[in-house]
Amino acid sequence: MPRTDPNTTSIKARQRIEQAFSPASLRELTHRLADILGRHFESTRSSSGRVLNWNEPPENCRLASEYLDPTSPMQHGPEPLVDRFEKLASEMLARGHNLHDPRYIGHQVPASVPLAGLFDAIGSVTNQVMAVYEMGPWATAVERSLVDRIGQAIGFEPGTFAGLVTHGGTLGNMTGLLTARNVSLGAAWESGMHTAGAAPVLVAQGDSHYSILRTAGMIGIGTRNVVRVRLDRQRRMDPNHLNEMLTELRLKGTPIVAVCACACATPIGAFDPLPAIAEVCSRHDVWLHVDAAHGGAACLSDKYRHLIAGLELADSVVADAHKMMFVPALCAFVFYRNRDHRFEAFRQDAPYLFDPSSPGMADYDSGMLTPECTKRAASYGLWGIWSLFGQQLFSDMVDQTFDLGRVFYEMLVEAPDFEPLHEPQCNIVAFQYVPDELRDAPVEQLNQFLLRLRRDLIRSGEYYIVQANIDGRQALRVTIINPLTTTDHLNGLLDAIRWTGRTIPASNVERT
Amino acid sequence: MPRTDPNTTSIKARQRIEQAFSPASLRELTHRLADILGRHFESTRSSSGRVLNWNEPPENCRLASEYLDPTSPMQHGPEPLVDRFEKLASEMLARGHNLHDPRYIGHQVPASVPLAGLFDAIGSVTNQVMAVYEMGPWATAVERSLVDRIGQAIGFEPGTFAGLVTHGGTLGNMTGLLTARNVSLGAAWESGMHTAGAAPVLVAQGDSHYSILRTAGMIGIGTRNVVRVRLDRQRRMDPNHLNEMLTELRLKGTPIVAVCACACATPIGAFDPLPAIAEVCSRHDVWLHVDAAHGGAACLSDKYRHLIAGLELADSVVADAHKMMFVPALCAFVFYRNRDHRFEAFRQDAPYLFDPSSPGMADYDSGMLTPECTKRAASYGLWGIWSLFGQQLFSDMVDQTFDLGRVFYEMLVEAPDFEPLHEPQCNIVAFQYVPDELRDAPVEQLNQFLLRLRRDLIRSGEYYIVQANIDGRQALRVTIINPLTTTDHLNGLLDAIRWTGRTIPASNVERT
Repeated sequence: MPRTDPNTTSIKARQRIEQAFSPASLRELTHRLADILGRHFESTRSSSGRVLNWNEPPENCRLASEYLDPTSPMQHGPEPLVDRFEKLASEMLARGHNLHDPRYIGHQVPASVPLAGLFDAIGSVTNQVMAVYEMGPWATAVERSLVDRIGQAIGFEPGTFAGLVTHGGTLGNMTGLLTARNVSLGAAWESGMHTAGAAPVLVAQGDSHYSILRTAGMIGIGTRNVVRVRLDRQRRMDPNHLNEMLTELRLKGTPIVAVCACACATPIGAFDPLPAIAEVCSRHDVWLHVDAAHGGAACLSDKYRHLIAGLELADSVVADAHKMMFVPALCAFVFYRNRDHRFEAFRQDAPYLFDPSSPGMADYDSGMLTPECTKRAASYGLWGIWSLFGQQLFSDMVDQTFDLGRVFYEMLVEAPDFEPLHEPQCNIVAFQYVPDELRDAPVEQLNQFLLRLRRDLIRSGEYYIVQANIDGRQALRVTIINPLTTTDHLNGLLDAIRWTGRTIPASNVERT
Repeated sequence: MPRTDPNTTSIKARQRIEQAFSPASLRELTHRLADILGRHFESTRSSSGRVLNWNEPPENCRLASEYLDPTSPMQHGPEPLVDRFEKLASEMLARGHNLHDPRYIGHQVPASVPLAGLFDAIGSVTNQVMAVYEMGPWATAVERSLVDRIGQAIGFEPGTFAGLVTHGGTLGNMTGLLTARNVSLGAAWESGMHTAGAAPVLVAQGDSHYSILRTAGMIGIGTRNVVRVRLDRQRRMDPNHLNEMLTELRLKGTPIVAVCACACATPIGAFDPLPAIAEVCSRHDVWLHVDAAHGGAACLSDKYRHLIAGLELADSVVADAHKMMFVPALCAFVFYRNRDHRFEAFRQDAPYLFDPSSPGMADYDSGMLTPECTKRAASYGLWGIWSLFGQQLFSDMVDQTFDLGRVFYEMLVEAPDFEPLHEPQCNIVAFQYVPDELRDAPVEQLNQFLLRLRRDLIRSGEYYIVQANIDGRQALRVTIINPLTTTDHLNGLLDAIRWTGRTIPASNVERT
């Protein structure tokens, strides 16, 4: 057999690889990054630029693609590597979204603790991953230590519960509901959902996040088999109606995968009455899943933990650290009240991964628990800032932002041209701006005006807020998920809305 | 109504928040991180420590938890923040896995380009996310520009295909197969898998990754409804057997979700003959999904792109950038040959996210395409190093590591006490070490010996390799997925295996 020449890869190729992996370059570029990030955060902190750097999608796509072109000057420039790195980093920052500007109070995505991103960077630069313990021994330990702490803060009994981290609340809801499906329906994992008899249903809060419907589509339940529980006037699940529904479903012999409650629901941040709901579920022997993606972090606050009372009664719970624990996306926790359910979502083993010579080890192999096989060290950021600042920091941030939700509500009540659409339970507030000339306008005209107003406002870069539609009424919506935001910024928001509204001729709003 | 005091959050709490969000701290800690990472990579580069820092799971878990304890000295230490940060970072590195040590040649997880992690850090420190375009305008642009480049390198027709990035190959396979399910079965998304008639099946390569079976369990097909196509002697899918199977299934009227082929399969890195498979699928009108998580990057190499010839004929393709494009986990690409299929996996809309006042915008909203709703800017790392070094770097790394797979195979052939279990097509090589005293031992005794040997070897920190079981034969297995590994390291591996083997009394191996 002819011997392969070990030097087939050209000298030039080896030089390129050496440069890309050079420790000296890594050190030099990280130092440069320190200055770039320092300047950037000084600027966002002081609101000296725009919140959202709006550019039309085709323009951004064209530019991003130009850099990848083999003829791009970036790839052939005479400048040192570190200067080319700075150009790229600056472009990324100049065209991104400045969540750390205190005028960012939009989606349920936080102005994260910047230092959490540095701990994440340790994971990404060294590429720490999990699936089997031996690939990510410290990543595994960090995740488990956080599962333990947060699970106990929720109120689960030490030693009796289990948990995991996955890439976001949607996958978290899917994992929890997959467990519910497999436990509730028996052989669904092995035999599929193709069974005789009545179609199984998922019972969901009327305002539950679209990932619940998505999960029903994904895991073979079907979106049409999601039935909705009525909401009370505060848009919370009505436990009496739930009881009626479950009674009826049981009478008809309809298989029930689970009940999905919210803590809190997305549109206005309503927290369901969990103790009553848990009692109903228990009476009917139905799995209770609670989507606490947003509100779960209240377990770390003395002041607000009452909102999630009863969360410890759920069979499965989702709580996103990349929401109200203020770490970068994505780091979502899933908990099982009963530790025995931890392997039920994915009932399989991969013998080439899981070493029969170390049988006890499989319990530390995250790949058995999560939808991902290889998973990044997604909780380095949370572990790092928790270790550095202590649990108190999380409590501070929850209190600060939830408090400010109330303050903002009161500002809206006092302003004659604004109308809050609900009394907030947390940091989510939906409201309308109704200028004099639209006070008697048809609903649809006001709706169109508000859609246009928000779009113009965010594209101006002055503030970043989002929208919602509450029972047909178009709302402006804030999530005060930036601990740097103050009442001054909120007053500024009201002014910016008024000012933007004046640039829109009321008669000239778009029709859908 | 009593006015809420905006100063309810204590002065001390505000100080803690200020410190955590301080631009000056971020700058100072990032500079410190530059030195920590520089030293760390100099050390791993020169193999001056252990590859895997092995500690027993309970010990790591106990320690990780201690840092989180409210009484931890870390949270109350008198040292400056930057020094406490260094302690934590050092602990993380000292207990992690050193994939950048050239003796790491284990799982299909690369020694990633370290600078890619820095670009990812820009995303994590500033918390850039996607779902709707306006939340991550640049993240969206970067992802789309890479989808375009890589899709075209695979051979898809510009303008006719579509793609997305998700958190790993498992979710990628699930997304592709969910699309196949929804397209092949019609109303599965809405009605669920609970339908009359024969149970649908998934037709898979015999060695396909466990995520294919997992997907069947997740999306309601059922793991028992996965049927396996026979392998040829090189462990590639046999297109003739595939043709027989599809003919028979069609005759029986069994609904077929998809055929899953591999480029390449995990155990020995076998690439299926895609043109022949695509032809059979086309003849029977069956969706072809190709798991090219590992081998997809060959599209960037002139020397090895022949291995994936025909990939452009697949209906859906998964290619992981966090494997052979050498970026940190997780960054997996999914492609659809027919652009019209891009919204089929998740057939829904979330009206509060997708703005009816900007109808064209939804095509730029990644949340419509991926299992995640909020998604991190997962392709910043790939875009950054591609922009900095050009496409040639990826070709270099594929060539270097695939070449070395062949070199290693030839070393094994020449060594009297080693036996390769196959001729490699890429950088995955499975083999046995058979010392003289075990030459005539029963299969099970050799298997146990090799399991024990690998475990002892990796826990020593000398090398990191993995294992496989090929038709009942226990194998040692390497993936040369570290561009810093040379033939010297591979020779050293053979010696380390021999040396470790001598420490295990052949008669004293464990029994399962």
